[in-house]
Amino acid sequence: MKNIVLVLCSCLLFSITYGQIDKIEPPFWWSGMHLDQLQLVCYGKDISKYDIQIEGLTITEVKKTENPNYVFVTIDTKGVQPTTFSIDFKENNNTVFSQPYELKQRRENSKDRKGFDSSDVMYLIMPDRFANGDSKNDSHPDTVEKADRSNPGGRHGGDLQGVIDHLDYLKDLGATALWSTPLLEDNEPVYSYHTYAQSDLYKIDPRYGTNEDYKRLASEMHKQDMKLIMDYVTNHWGSKHWMIQDLPTKDWIHQWPEGFRRSNYRMTTQFDKNAAQVDAKGCMDGWFDTTMPDMNQSNPLLLNYITQNAIWWIEYADLDGFRVDTYSYNDKDGIAQWTKAIMEEYPNFNIVGEVWMHNQAQIAYWQKDSKIGAINGFNSYLPSVMDFTLHDALMVVFDEDEGAWDKGMIRAYENFTNDFLYPDINNILLFAGNHDTNRINEIYQGDIDKYKMAMTLVFTTRGIPQIYYGDEIGMLGNRDKKGDGDIRRDFPGGWEGDQQNAFLPTDQNIGRTKDQEAFHSFTKKVLNWRKNASAIHNGQLLQFIPFDNVYVYFRYNKEQTIMVIINNSTKDQNINVNRFKEGIQAFKTGTDIITDNNIDITEDFNIQAKKSMILELK
Amino acid sequence: MKNIVLVLCSCLLFSITYGQIDKIEPPFWWSGMHLDQLQLVCYGKDISKYDIQIEGLTITEVKKTENPNYVFVTIDTKGVQPTTFSIDFKENNNTVFSQPYELKQRRENSKDRKGFDSSDVMYLIMPDRFANGDSKNDSHPDTVEKADRSNPGGRHGGDLQGVIDHLDYLKDLGATALWSTPLLEDNEPVYSYHTYAQSDLYKIDPRYGTNEDYKRLASEMHKQDMKLIMDYVTNHWGSKHWMIQDLPTKDWIHQWPEGFRRSNYRMTTQFDKNAAQVDAKGCMDGWFDTTMPDMNQSNPLLLNYITQNAIWWIEYADLDGFRVDTYSYNDKDGIAQWTKAIMEEYPNFNIVGEVWMHNQAQIAYWQKDSKIGAINGFNSYLPSVMDFTLHDALMVVFDEDEGAWDKGMIRAYENFTNDFLYPDINNILLFAGNHDTNRINEIYQGDIDKYKMAMTLVFTTRGIPQIYYGDEIGMLGNRDKKGDGDIRRDFPGGWEGDQQNAFLPTDQNIGRTKDQEAFHSFTKKVLNWRKNASAIHNGQLLQFIPFDNVYVYFRYNKEQTIMVIINNSTKDQNINVNRFKEGIQAFKTGTDIITDNNIDITEDFNIQAKKSMILELK
Repeated sequence: MKNIVLVLCSCLLFSITYGQIDKIEPPFWWSGMHLDQLQLVCYGKDISKYDIQIEGLTITEVKKTENPNYVFVTIDTKGVQPTTFSIDFKENNNTVFSQPYELKQRRENSKDRKGFDSSDVMYLIMPDRFANGDSKNDSHPDTVEKADRSNPGGRHGGDLQGVIDHLDYLKDLGATALWSTPLLEDNEPVYSYHTYAQSDLYKIDPRYGTNEDYKRLASEMHKQDMKLIMDYVTNHWGSKHWMIQDLPTKDWIHQWPEGFRRSNYRMTTQFDKNAAQVDAKGCMDGWFDTTMPDMNQSNPLLLNYITQNAIWWIEYADLDGFRVDTYSYNDKDGIAQWTKAIMEEYPNFNIVGEVWMHNQAQIAYWQKDSKIGAINGFNSYLPSVMDFTLHDALMVVFDEDEGAWDKGMIRAYENFTNDFLYPDINNILLFAGNHDTNRINEIYQGDIDKYKMAMTLVFTTRGIPQIYYGDEIGMLGNRDKKGDGDIRRDFPGGWEGDQQNAFLPTDQNIGRTKDQEAFHSFTKKVLNWRKNASAIHNGQLLQFIPFDNVYVYFRYNKEQTIMVIINNSTKDQNINVNRFKEGIQAFKTGTDIITDNNIDITEDFNIQAKKSMILELK
Repeated sequence: MKNIVLVLCSCLLFSITYGQIDKIEPPFWWSGMHLDQLQLVCYGKDISKYDIQIEGLTITEVKKTENPNYVFVTIDTKGVQPTTFSIDFKENNNTVFSQPYELKQRRENSKDRKGFDSSDVMYLIMPDRFANGDSKNDSHPDTVEKADRSNPGGRHGGDLQGVIDHLDYLKDLGATALWSTPLLEDNEPVYSYHTYAQSDLYKIDPRYGTNEDYKRLASEMHKQDMKLIMDYVTNHWGSKHWMIQDLPTKDWIHQWPEGFRRSNYRMTTQFDKNAAQVDAKGCMDGWFDTTMPDMNQSNPLLLNYITQNAIWWIEYADLDGFRVDTYSYNDKDGIAQWTKAIMEEYPNFNIVGEVWMHNQAQIAYWQKDSKIGAINGFNSYLPSVMDFTLHDALMVVFDEDEGAWDKGMIRAYENFTNDFLYPDINNILLFAGNHDTNRINEIYQGDIDKYKMAMTLVFTTRGIPQIYYGDEIGMLGNRDKKGDGDIRRDFPGGWEGDQQNAFLPTDQNIGRTKDQEAFHSFTKKVLNWRKNASAIHNGQLLQFIPFDNVYVYFRYNKEQTIMVIINNSTKDQNINVNRFKEGIQAFKTGTDIITDNNIDITEDFNIQAKKSMILELK
């Protein structure tokens, strides 16, 4: 254990000076927060030896640890108006040094911010790979790894300005929310572009821009009625984080006798009543990678730290949601407390957790108020989870032509038969791919019919669709064969001098190719229609057993009824309207929002092989 | 609808006479039953026109239907001592005819009978295929289909006397309970040997013997501390049942406009909140086969009928349990009421339902007090279900040598990670095969090592093991390729003149071959040890993540600790005892109950490739 601490200490990135404070976190806070018992981390050489006083404010607790360079000061901000006060560090009643600290004014109605929901479509980017809006920050003196666009695992220079520059593209496409993979500083010497090994939780990585740029992104998005979602990482930090370099407590992270131990990744040990403790610990306390120490969320000081940090970013940058990385690898009770605290601060916020499992009961376990979680007394308080089982199905169904008992569209249908297991089925994220999976268009070898069938399903069933940047232009990428870099290629046109610019329409000189345009125009058409399709946002789902590889379902509410047909067979198929009368009711016509064709639904009609229809019934 | 009724009527098997009662069911009842409001079905030509009186007894309800040949008379037997009374059928106050009816004396403590449980091992037979103890009843004048042993789908002549004659074989093998597939009369002209199309619910098929023989079987078993389990079929009757031939009400069965409609078998529609009603109805109300009308358990008269019939058999034959066929195809609320009524009558009884699904949450849904069932307000009251997902795993794991993420022993391990979903995990039936699946030894091509690994797991994990007759001598059978008959071959030696008699040990002239003996002696050894292994009966399960295709788990209680090791890899493997110290605790020696070897477990030891060990720790 000692070894690790020493090794980590040896590369501390900034010098620590005696007789002053080097860091205080959070750097500021706000007046009028629900979280009003604020835990300030004060860091400085032997800082724990001082007495601490704040004129006119109550200190609730001063907590010292085995590391004399830390003191955790909890102050009571309840009822305190916006102000700047002084934290005095004293010895023998004399102030040796002082630290000003500000409680800011919150923006009006900050508490009531509304998170993303099923009326949204989430666009996922990796910021290093989307667009380079400011080539001056591609490398930065404060961070070790420098830009190298020729390296698939290197830094390519994408940044916040690049995203801001292309908000009109997203808006036009029909996306209403943006999830960017992490943006906080990741100062690993190599492979830092994924940014999941964060070295400073209060600072945007300078190669992406500044904290102010991030705030500006949110502000620009809000002007266009779009939402910004932060990718929050509770489970691990980067090895270069300053607190990892000089651990406040030994149990700030999970340490192993042998130094590094990789997680066994068996998340089932989180609920398996037969599981050996050693295996459960091996999953939850094992590390994701050598560069990612596993955080100990059962340590209340750490838990407070990440809770406040998360709330700080929401309040500071005016965020609309979190996506939480590797949610189910955290200490279960700790992450539940973290989630609960955030949702208490912002009751209408939304948080989607990555629970990458292959069984609906196991995923549903992690959603707030789950009856399955309740079996072993657990409530995550997590509003939203991801539909990984749908993703499992999407990866294969459109290559399955047989009408076998459990193959083809049956596989998709069966996913929805388990919806009752989820406490809030409409608050579940749907996706055909993300930054960790093979690209959907790679799986289906660029077959646009398969893309259209897959996305018809993702865009029109219950839940919140998410698309991965570039899928809408048919981008390819094979993670299994070529590694992560291949599914995270640069978006064409995001860099000055790119030979092609897929942000531009096909009729422009270097714009989208015809093939790309076909993917793009389908996506754009459906997503823009979806913006106002209330039955898709909040309607009931009514599904029919697929026969002949044809899946038919309805989404309906009082205002609107949508009939979706996905013909995954290799033949044209007849739609027997009598069989679907529960959904069709008294409607007479269906307008296919993909083709604009009107179809008489009072009698049987045909759907072509490998096509889908989204019929708005009249 | 009319068509069916007419067609069915045209082949009514007994004549119905005016001015008398042709049938009364139940044929008798008992005094002192919890079910004391007894519904008597009285059947006779135009019987509904009579007034009914019983001297000295209260008639609670007289229910007539659209069919004048029926009257349903409910009598109050509460507090009535054993007696025979007279049911008088009157016209203008004159008794036209009378029917004596007996309330018998119950056996002492009948109510408290204890059903099968996890201390038992259930042996499953198909009675036509096990042993022919009485060749005189192979064909019978009262039933249409005659014996033809040369036909794999014909009647072979096995019977109750054959079972009684071989109880010593079962006892010696270590089985403690017998589940026989149905024995009640099935008067279909062909393919009646499976006996799931029953034509008389109060009568043992004469080709198996008499009601008295069945009672004698139970009695002989009880003398040897063995338990008898009846295969009860609530979902469908045979087309030749007298009430199907002259339906009491049109909705006694589920009828379809087109005559016959096969079930779509999509049991997920039972809980899928998105399911179309037409699909749910198509599953629950569709028929299993043309010869098996689907019973309507939402009809209270029918529900009473099958409830009373079930209780009648328990009380009459002194049964120890039910296995219920196609449990999850019944009307959900009806079957729950049926199950509840039986369990209220016999609170310590046990009933295992066939819920053939491939997802633990979906199976667990059907077990009594399920938290998953409760999500949509359902409680089946069914004490026990079957571990079909374990069966799914057993069919493939022992052919999987790779240490892949989700293959080999990991697949078995993962089955148990979901145990928390079941409200009563130890009351779950475990099996490597039954009368509807490919034979386990066919799947593994007679490889005895694979049989031993599979059965080690089935015999020592939580739950109630069930073995299918003949598996213990390595019998083969391929349902997929050769049909049902192939997995239901005659047990060798069950028929006089059989060239071989596998009921006898290998040292006898025509006894088991050496290969058969190897299967048998392993099975016998483990099962006889299991009889007194309390940790296996009721101990906790503690399991470890398999590495290198080696699965290690413990069963333990205060009295006993068992360590089970299954090495499914193709190499000998080292057992690192330090990793398993949670289970090994302070024990020093493990006695392998398969080989009788003692193993020093204070240090690492080896297990051979494709072998299992069952170590009793000391």
